[in-house]
Amino acid sequence: MIENRIKHMLSLEGDNREVVIEGWIRTRRDSKEVSFIAVNDGSTMNNIQVVIDRSFPDFDKLNPRLVNGASVSIKGKLVPSQGKEQSVEVIPVEITITGDSPGDEYPLQKKRHSFEFLREIAHLRPRTNTFGAVARVRNAMSFAIHRYYNERGFVNIHTPIITGSDCEGAGEMFRVTTLPMSRVPITDGEIDYSKDFFGKEASLTVSGQLNAEIYALALKNVYTFGPTFRAEKSNTSRHLAEFWMIEPEMAFCDINGNMDAAEDFIKYILRYVLEHCSEDMAFFNSMIEKGIIENLEHIIKSDFERITYTEGVDELLKSKKNFEFPVKWGMDLQSEHERFLTQEVFKKPVIVTDYPKDIKAFYMKQNDDGKTVRAMDVLVPRLGEIIGGSERENDYNKLLNRIEEMGLNADDYWWYLELRKYGSVPHSGFGLGFERLIQFVTGMQNIRDVIPFPRSVETLDF
Amino acid sequence: MIENRIKHMLSLEGDNREVVIEGWIRTRRDSKEVSFIAVNDGSTMNNIQVVIDRSFPDFDKLNPRLVNGASVSIKGKLVPSQGKEQSVEVIPVEITITGDSPGDEYPLQKKRHSFEFLREIAHLRPRTNTFGAVARVRNAMSFAIHRYYNERGFVNIHTPIITGSDCEGAGEMFRVTTLPMSRVPITDGEIDYSKDFFGKEASLTVSGQLNAEIYALALKNVYTFGPTFRAEKSNTSRHLAEFWMIEPEMAFCDINGNMDAAEDFIKYILRYVLEHCSEDMAFFNSMIEKGIIENLEHIIKSDFERITYTEGVDELLKSKKNFEFPVKWGMDLQSEHERFLTQEVFKKPVIVTDYPKDIKAFYMKQNDDGKTVRAMDVLVPRLGEIIGGSERENDYNKLLNRIEEMGLNADDYWWYLELRKYGSVPHSGFGLGFERLIQFVTGMQNIRDVIPFPRSVETLDF
Repeated sequence: MIENRIKHMLSLEGDNREVVIEGWIRTRRDSKEVSFIAVNDGSTMNNIQVVIDRSFPDFDKLNPRLVNGASVSIKGKLVPSQGKEQSVEVIPVEITITGDSPGDEYPLQKKRHSFEFLREIAHLRPRTNTFGAVARVRNAMSFAIHRYYNERGFVNIHTPIITGSDCEGAGEMFRVTTLPMSRVPITDGEIDYSKDFFGKEASLTVSGQLNAEIYALALKNVYTFGPTFRAEKSNTSRHLAEFWMIEPEMAFCDINGNMDAAEDFIKYILRYVLEHCSEDMAFFNSMIEKGIIENLEHIIKSDFERITYTEGVDELLKSKKNFEFPVKWGMDLQSEHERFLTQEVFKKPVIVTDYPKDIKAFYMKQNDDGKTVRAMDVLVPRLGEIIGGSERENDYNKLLNRIEEMGLNADDYWWYLELRKYGSVPHSGFGLGFERLIQFVTGMQNIRDVIPFPRSVETLDF
Repeated sequence: MIENRIKHMLSLEGDNREVVIEGWIRTRRDSKEVSFIAVNDGSTMNNIQVVIDRSFPDFDKLNPRLVNGASVSIKGKLVPSQGKEQSVEVIPVEITITGDSPGDEYPLQKKRHSFEFLREIAHLRPRTNTFGAVARVRNAMSFAIHRYYNERGFVNIHTPIITGSDCEGAGEMFRVTTLPMSRVPITDGEIDYSKDFFGKEASLTVSGQLNAEIYALALKNVYTFGPTFRAEKSNTSRHLAEFWMIEPEMAFCDINGNMDAAEDFIKYILRYVLEHCSEDMAFFNSMIEKGIIENLEHIIKSDFERITYTEGVDELLKSKKNFEFPVKWGMDLQSEHERFLTQEVFKKPVIVTDYPKDIKAFYMKQNDDGKTVRAMDVLVPRLGEIIGGSERENDYNKLLNRIEEMGLNADDYWWYLELRKYGSVPHSGFGLGFERLIQFVTGMQNIRDVIPFPRSVETLDF
């Protein structure tokens, strides 16, 4: 199947072998005697050139249909190219137009279209250089993630999408329901969810972590890789309502093992992409963000700096820099602070641990100081936070206290608490937003351009 | 990371090397001089035996805590086993109990628990032989799917979970909303979805196919592997409200290529599981469904029979068998008919094509007879339909007519129709329910037992 793809053909010698090209015409150019059409099949950024002599049978009939956007199946001979831009080209023997295109009215013309415009034609944008490259890089990263964990004996767990619980105790979830919206059943002034599909309130998951912990406490090392949701009305270039997340969870692993795991994982994925997507990465490097390849190579070679939140705050205070958000112990770090630490102070990725407990989730392991928890955030230059994780609280009573302290309902967490009663162990994990990582790797500025069909406020097309 | 797992240790010689065992005590047995504890870490069905002499330091303190369900970290020497059931065992040097268990009150006792009971403790069931094996087999199959398509140059596409369209024109979808359920905004008697998060009605996807077609018509070969949803109130052992589906979509591929692709794919996955999960498969073969390995091997060796629906109906009529649902051209095949064809007539998988158009979806390619469409269903012994697919209608006008004929709104399909205007090509694809395939491979009877956290009517626990 790989053998009949253009990527493969372009790697061959022009030895007159017979080939069949199947793909879409990207451009066309005419000289007096011949027409050159460039055909792409999505296997590579590069097109293969087909050189059609005007003496080709039925040329006059074929000619007006050989336009930008049309799909073709062309049998021909692979020969050395006369031109300088490619080493091989195809001399056709048989040309079939499998699907016509209106040519000039085809929405993708040979000019640069804005990403905004391309979002409006998301059904055609994968046929452009940029979005073809994004799709291939996304695919390579996705496979790399599965390969990485598979090689290390991690078990992939499909945690549920529809959930009855609220992982982080935060709101901002989408409701899932089959109740009739125009006449929601009310009993005693309350919505009667007993009549809903699941017999109770249901939402879209914000994280698979709590469920993944169940499996980590049975199979030791597991990971999730699936869609997660936020009903936040953030209409920015960094937020999506629906995005994919990778969440490894490891038993018999403390915060130090967690940091090692995160650092090793990121470096593996970056290496994999540079190795397997060199053409596409060269495109991003020259057309989207200059120097990005060097940038990623630098990350791969760096030992990530590891500091506590308190040390980070000290660095920021010491800098005497005028931040928009003044620095104070206890505050959450803002993008400007994260960027300052990675770009100015350490000039490489930084893992910050031991955050104040009040700005972190209930499930994080409490330190003995009574003030901080074993959280870790991995910050990278340009992007800021790319990973958030922690060692998990594995003491039943401490966890219960924290749940109550934060005003959550302990009954909702009965099974999560029970995991601490039956052979609990130190365990840790983290979450990584897949689209953020793709942005980091490709340099694409808007997160809506690294997912096939973005969902966000007022955006639900295609 | 693989090196410190019990699966690996059990494959070694007992050469006195130092090992560290981390896992959960599955059973304990005492003789006069020694205690035997069997430790499992989820890497394999098999436990490793630790032999603790009563003279072990602090034995009396440790002893009551070395119970079923407790988690332990044990440093020791790997030695040849005295017993016959294992080739190696561990003589401990240092024992750390990382998490206690209440022993007799631990819900998993050394007896066979019913699957019904285990569903109620889904946070503990992965610690049983059966559910550990299911998790490992599910993981192996999941990886095999990604590997299969990656090796063949298919691009993995993450199609959207939240959708504004309804792929099959069928109802039964879950609504996704952030509207306040107790006071849904009504304007002119209609629900005002302009106030909802996406500004219009939103649901959970029932299939990624239509979106996948977009990418197939740019990158040629793509696949999805993600969660899909049905709000059907089918409380059976074969239905889930949330399940995972694999949907490849191939351009320049007709129904014959589609059949080849489906047959090759299934055989690859079966071979992969038999090769990579031999211990777990031996367990299913002896404890869950006798003969299942032989059964799968038979499928791998078979050439799938390929017949048309009309031929299938003829076979059924010819049989003169008394079916519960009498056979008649035009009806949908029921389980009893599918089983008869695979188990009685052909004794192997059967691919049935060219179904009556009235029982199939709008997007299937219409045959020239005006009555049938290029649908295909792959039927397998025991299970029945495991794959449904088709060649897609790629003629703009035929597709538009069919959409209107079926009472769908053509505006909702504007981009799907446009794909037939701009370089359309013959293309095909299919969908395979992942959980059904796992049931087929493992012999597990209830679909709720092959997904970590099942969702169905009134079932939304964990």
